[in-house]
Amino acid sequence: MNSSTNYNIVCLAGGVGGAKLAHGLAQIVPPERLTIIVNTGDDFQHMGLTICPDLDTVMYALAGTANAATGWGRADESFHVLDEVARLGGPDWFRLGDLDLATHLVRTHLLATGQTLTAVTQHLCRHLHIQPDVLPMSNQPAPTFIQSGARRLPFQTWFVAERWQPPVDKVVLPENVRASAQVTHKLEKADIVILAPSNPFVSLDPILNVYPIREMVMDLPQAVVAVSPIVGGQAVKGPAAKMMQERGVAVSATAVRDYYGDLLDGFVYDVQDADAEPPAGMTLCVDTMMHDDADRRRLAQDVLALAQRIIVATAE
Amino acid sequence: MNSSTNYNIVCLAGGVGGAKLAHGLAQIVPPERLTIIVNTGDDFQHMGLTICPDLDTVMYALAGTANAATGWGRADESFHVLDEVARLGGPDWFRLGDLDLATHLVRTHLLATGQTLTAVTQHLCRHLHIQPDVLPMSNQPAPTFIQSGARRLPFQTWFVAERWQPPVDKVVLPENVRASAQVTHKLEKADIVILAPSNPFVSLDPILNVYPIREMVMDLPQAVVAVSPIVGGQAVKGPAAKMMQERGVAVSATAVRDYYGDLLDGFVYDVQDADAEPPAGMTLCVDTMMHDDADRRRLAQDVLALAQRIIVATAE
Repeated sequence: MNSSTNYNIVCLAGGVGGAKLAHGLAQIVPPERLTIIVNTGDDFQHMGLTICPDLDTVMYALAGTANAATGWGRADESFHVLDEVARLGGPDWFRLGDLDLATHLVRTHLLATGQTLTAVTQHLCRHLHIQPDVLPMSNQPAPTFIQSGARRLPFQTWFVAERWQPPVDKVVLPENVRASAQVTHKLEKADIVILAPSNPFVSLDPILNVYPIREMVMDLPQAVVAVSPIVGGQAVKGPAAKMMQERGVAVSATAVRDYYGDLLDGFVYDVQDADAEPPAGMTLCVDTMMHDDADRRRLAQDVLALAQRIIVATAE
Repeated sequence: MNSSTNYNIVCLAGGVGGAKLAHGLAQIVPPERLTIIVNTGDDFQHMGLTICPDLDTVMYALAGTANAATGWGRADESFHVLDEVARLGGPDWFRLGDLDLATHLVRTHLLATGQTLTAVTQHLCRHLHIQPDVLPMSNQPAPTFIQSGARRLPFQTWFVAERWQPPVDKVVLPENVRASAQVTHKLEKADIVILAPSNPFVSLDPILNVYPIREMVMDLPQAVVAVSPIVGGQAVKGPAAKMMQERGVAVSATAVRDYYGDLLDGFVYDVQDADAEPPAGMTLCVDTMMHDDADRRRLAQDVLALAQRIIVATAE
């Protein structure tokens, strides 16, 4: 896979699954060739702080400071502040650890000085010694809402406070949000775009919905490859499977492939789904579970191998 | 001093000195008879949080959770968050401990829900098991600025970041700030008003400047008594002495007494200043240093004794 290191690679990522694959890619792709564009639809204001859960999860994974057990938050974390917040009758439904809180405080401070979210994220990455570019999808707020019956819930209220139990009638994405100049610059130069194994509806659609990301991903790269977040007919983590059931589609890798449609040139899915109806188009069926750093690296290599196959096939 | 427990007592307080005397009063006055009105001129926004240093110092003292060594912040405090803020290139000049941060987070959260600072302070006091009323001087922001040459510094920038070293040409207090209904209600019923041994210029003037606190203190209570923050020709803590020098007045208890003028009916000053020219009017010269809880209680008793003497003398 050495030749793939000559490609400019952009990975679109949500939270945990996206962060793991981003970390796998970072282990094998030169940092100047790798950009992670991250969903900020989950961002919210909480106790005065601007919290960007997916950006944080990706940053912590790339910095090697993520909590491997939970998938979110920092390793070696303590909760002195949040325990006291609870004692003082404050909200403790969003589990803010002490180290994690520092990220939100610094972000909120720098945003208040007038810096863009992109610049603030660059500041945090520099101090976390992260080399690849980690870019929020936009500098504008782009909050995702969940329509459930008559209720329109802010994303984190639905996802964390209500543990994604209210049925989703519609994922409501904002209109008129534009990508940052850094995002469009990286997509212009991208040879390979990877859609991480994140939730298609609430992690990747919010990114693709930001103008002109979907259009650029459709038109420009030589290969667009997605990794299935559905493994063995279940979501590895989170509400993807439940949301597919509620939409009346099969919970399968094939259905994910169909959902992305002609945006994709290739699709990577898990060996546990090898017996099911194979997804359309060029595919790779491998072990996609990322239990440790080696798994992440291996899946990143597999994804790039498929992308390279597509590029070679297209050139022929 | 049992008879003084029948009086309604209001104490105007700044930070450390005010908090200690408030705690002394709370040890001997029934809680329903005691109100602490606290300076909020020091309040500021920092990393997204609303921080009220004097309210916090008073609350922590009354809750018995103050840091006895520093005079500010919480006892048994840790700094996990601030250490990480520093590592992430954020501001660490304001020493926010983990337990202390919880106060600011809960306050900021409740203010964002639309509650007044008075209601938020009541919430915090309830959860800290504080019985006397602790009232911010106003629900409106009332920031104090320090004019130093051509620079107009926010109070905390001058006080903490620049360690109150820039000379003070003028303490700039906001106009058109009104006291809360709770403050005027308590002052209407007050028999005794105590000016705590806080800085006259940057702790008590900001309170008295809030309309109509000065007018009510002048007109209504039977006895208004101040405690000198100058002991032995020095400030017990902070910039009071330096500010008096810069104003060209003697650094003495007598000068403090003169500064308050006819607002006062009585003045308590320290035995270390017994040899100096005695302050005007009714006075009490006692040990005013508050090293421990017993000292605080004793000084509170002395202050109330002078107030009662004034009330009796006036009635005769």
